[in-house]
Amino acid sequence: MIMYTAGDVRVEERPDPKIIEPTDAIIRLTATCICGSDLWPYRGVEPADHTAMGHEYVGVVEAVGDDVRNVKVGDFVVGSFVISDNTCEICRSGYQSGCVHREFVAGTIGTQAEKARIPHADGTLVPTPGQPDEDLIPSLLAASDVLGTGWYGAVAAEAGPGRTVAVVGDGAVGLMAVLAAKQLGAERIIAMSRHPDRQELARFYGATDIVEERGDAGVARVKELTDGLGAHSVVEAVGTQESTMQAINSTRPGGRLGFVGVNYDVTIPGIDLFFAGIHVEGGPAPVRRFLPELIQLIWDRKIDPGRVFDLALPLDEAAQGYKVMDERRATKVLLTL
Amino acid sequence: MIMYTAGDVRVEERPDPKIIEPTDAIIRLTATCICGSDLWPYRGVEPADHTAMGHEYVGVVEAVGDDVRNVKVGDFVVGSFVISDNTCEICRSGYQSGCVHREFVAGTIGTQAEKARIPHADGTLVPTPGQPDEDLIPSLLAASDVLGTGWYGAVAAEAGPGRTVAVVGDGAVGLMAVLAAKQLGAERIIAMSRHPDRQELARFYGATDIVEERGDAGVARVKELTDGLGAHSVVEAVGTQESTMQAINSTRPGGRLGFVGVNYDVTIPGIDLFFAGIHVEGGPAPVRRFLPELIQLIWDRKIDPGRVFDLALPLDEAAQGYKVMDERRATKVLLTL
Repeated sequence: MIMYTAGDVRVEERPDPKIIEPTDAIIRLTATCICGSDLWPYRGVEPADHTAMGHEYVGVVEAVGDDVRNVKVGDFVVGSFVISDNTCEICRSGYQSGCVHREFVAGTIGTQAEKARIPHADGTLVPTPGQPDEDLIPSLLAASDVLGTGWYGAVAAEAGPGRTVAVVGDGAVGLMAVLAAKQLGAERIIAMSRHPDRQELARFYGATDIVEERGDAGVARVKELTDGLGAHSVVEAVGTQESTMQAINSTRPGGRLGFVGVNYDVTIPGIDLFFAGIHVEGGPAPVRRFLPELIQLIWDRKIDPGRVFDLALPLDEAAQGYKVMDERRATKVLLTL
Repeated sequence: MIMYTAGDVRVEERPDPKIIEPTDAIIRLTATCICGSDLWPYRGVEPADHTAMGHEYVGVVEAVGDDVRNVKVGDFVVGSFVISDNTCEICRSGYQSGCVHREFVAGTIGTQAEKARIPHADGTLVPTPGQPDEDLIPSLLAASDVLGTGWYGAVAAEAGPGRTVAVVGDGAVGLMAVLAAKQLGAERIIAMSRHPDRQELARFYGATDIVEERGDAGVARVKELTDGLGAHSVVEAVGTQESTMQAINSTRPGGRLGFVGVNYDVTIPGIDLFFAGIHVEGGPAPVRRFLPELIQLIWDRKIDPGRVFDLALPLDEAAQGYKVMDERRATKVLLTL
């Protein structure tokens, strides 16, 4: 899937990828999908010029370089949307998305494709315990980014027992943050959503309260629900100016904000952040840190993140997938191969 | 000490403060001082209109309201620059500067004075183990804000064993952050300073490296000193646009930034913070959390924060104190009574 320019996406034939570095693996994709962040170049916010699209992927290993030890031909693997060696000092501290060998899959590798070359395969890919049942594929695919990202948001916000978690954003990442908050044992989970179908999914994933208001009214409602204090933990999963300030102001003093919405054109007034007196952590999620745990939860059917996909199309019809996501007619589109 | 308007500060007679609430205490000040943040209204950045100045204080309790239990008449006490009840949920979580009864001493109470009424005395004041020796007064006074604030910056940045800490800012708070990082066991402490006298004091407090460069050049130098990764822990103790971005960019992915510089007119591009992938925590320091520990360290002569005062003047000459601090001819001015 190639984005020629904003709004112009086409499926075309490309040469098969080949092993270049001894740490590479070649995978044949089983499924891939379209991410909310793919809409940035689609809408012209990020540049696109014959860009290879896609950064979420699951599949079967077809070939490995001589130095690859942890995955072998035939393994079913899930990979992070950021390439990491998983051995450098930054990776070992749990921030694989800041790896010294970091490379973003989006734009360079492109996994809306039949095959992909994955650099640093040992540090990026995680094999599943065996060949997965068909119905687990969407959930495993979700782990590659949207689940891993929502999970990171909830971890960064320190969602956990005894804590009230507010999630700003009812897109796929926000819904996954609700799922994560539930798994992490949060006492109360406030989902901020005004779409009935997404509210329903938020409740399925563990939301205890729904707040429809946005901006200052949304902040006021969260405070009403938390004795006037604000939430202990807030996840920002939108990335607009309004949602960012709403998230900051919904967090109680000393509370924690995990922000995972890609926030182009957002400016945070320093003095507002200062007087909020909160913790803030965010950025591209270190999905690799969480993959082994997430894969196991899916394998054991303890979580069902795959329900976040509300449309499946063959890869050939990916252009239609972009269109319906851009028009918000689907939350997240799975692409079959 | 009253600030009539920007740049116009005068010492004048006022009626003695009286107990109003049963949780109040009246203290007779032993010493007070001028804070870098007092220069904001002095320079017209914050409004001033016959404002009672000063928020740092040590002294002897002269009277207490009926509900006060933890301090008694005759006690020598140190208080935080933020009034707190120390019993609400926010206080109990360690964020007393976000107390539901929070009140800033600056501007309302004003402790550049002979006496002051301190609300919520039990939650705000901490008695020393006895009457202090004269030479401990400056250090105890420093605990009231500048030491407590620098300490919070270092704690927020998780300064500790095995970690490299960079401190942006060589004012009193920055120097106290260096002291704190040393006490917290940091392996390496980089002080960013271009003033020889402050470099010397930074080394006295525990700095292992001095970086004179600022902005991007300062970031590059910190990276050179840290294998290209950036510091584990960074304390921002200035509050300008340049210093804020320098601090963000000096922090390694997954690292921690404690920001305690009051940052009017600073705007943080969300996308820069996103791709930095760091933790950020800051705001008005919850000094009350640290006071018991800091008082004990001072009492046992394990730390000597009082050296940060490089000029002492009688309260009557406080106007001169503002002038020399504004002109950067003194780091921090102690006012004697």
